[in-house]
Amino acid sequence: MEVKVVQNILKVNEKLADENRKLFAAKDVFVIDVMASPGAGKTSTILATVDSLKDDVNIAVIEGDIASKVDAEKIQEHGVEAVQINTGGACHLDGNMIQNALQVLDLDAIDLLIVENVGNLVCPAEFDLGQSMKLVISSVPEGDDKPLKYPVIFTQADALILNKVDMLEATDFSETAFEEGVRRLNPRAPIFKISATKGDGVEAWTEWLRERVDAASK
Amino acid sequence: MEVKVVQNILKVNEKLADENRKLFAAKDVFVIDVMASPGAGKTSTILATVDSLKDDVNIAVIEGDIASKVDAEKIQEHGVEAVQINTGGACHLDGNMIQNALQVLDLDAIDLLIVENVGNLVCPAEFDLGQSMKLVISSVPEGDDKPLKYPVIFTQADALILNKVDMLEATDFSETAFEEGVRRLNPRAPIFKISATKGDGVEAWTEWLRERVDAASK
Repeated sequence: MEVKVVQNILKVNEKLADENRKLFAAKDVFVIDVMASPGAGKTSTILATVDSLKDDVNIAVIEGDIASKVDAEKIQEHGVEAVQINTGGACHLDGNMIQNALQVLDLDAIDLLIVENVGNLVCPAEFDLGQSMKLVISSVPEGDDKPLKYPVIFTQADALILNKVDMLEATDFSETAFEEGVRRLNPRAPIFKISATKGDGVEAWTEWLRERVDAASK
Repeated sequence: MEVKVVQNILKVNEKLADENRKLFAAKDVFVIDVMASPGAGKTSTILATVDSLKDDVNIAVIEGDIASKVDAEKIQEHGVEAVQINTGGACHLDGNMIQNALQVLDLDAIDLLIVENVGNLVCPAEFDLGQSMKLVISSVPEGDDKPLKYPVIFTQADALILNKVDMLEATDFSETAFEEGVRRLNPRAPIFKISATKGDGVEAWTEWLRERVDAASK
């Protein structure tokens, strides 16, 4: 009984996500679903990405949070459009919330739409938004065992960012253990090691992303 | 329709949690539900607590994870009984999972039962386990804005630990901003600042806890 209801919710979501996906394709918009633990640096990574690409790429951001609008305000200060979704307690974004947010965005004026999901390594993995790719951010202070403990989200990632590499020396994080953990679940997704706030490694990530955005608009 | 189903699930859970609560009271067991983001240091804090109290207090630990049994193994190495629950994808523990774990624990031989919930700042807050207190751990590298973004769990905390204070200098974390954020939601819960791996501040937390465990067994 319970399971059936969950399946229905996921089925309805899949339909809405497919509608989003068709709309994004028709409008040549490349869409990233950014997923991570609370405090892994989703907003900082988005800000670094925006600063690196905004002169050449038209970017907009959808910020998903249970409460508050601080993240959307931070993004707007960097000169790109940002829409805040407050989920009112829900632990993830879904296709319907994205449809609502799209009503206030002009997709004809956007090449890259970055969606920051709710900070959570579990629930967001279950809900398709119609995105072009899923980006999972893990951060050094969280520890190198996160792939082992939260396997679904690491399996689904199209690209991974290991953030806060400036803290490697202050922790016992093993890059080898982390990479082995990821590779057991996900043989192909590239892993970009960055410090979003200090700038290390950001260019390799944004150059890789720029190629995908360019390909989507051709 | 959806909402009704969720309410039913919560109602069934509340009944099971109440059964657990009565059993814990009858057996004089003090039970902590430990909730935090992935990587905030739940296991390290539990290990530091075990090491500080195990000579005087009979402790057992229930470890909740989506996958893997590494945490239960770590706990057992410190000489106390540990039961691993794998939720198989679920984003939180519930009253029923605790009942199943209790079948392999001798409550007559336990004064303090520590339950490590799934790493998640959202979903565990919704599910009563029958615990005596809820402990929320936040860690310095996650940033000082977590109470603002995940208010429900901070509102529910009976005690808070701010972990990884040894990383304060390496970040722009503001202790004042964090404490103000907590106090807006939760005027009374004590906040213990610790480094679980280095030992700073652990004694103040475990002394406070020991008083509560002693009171429960009288």
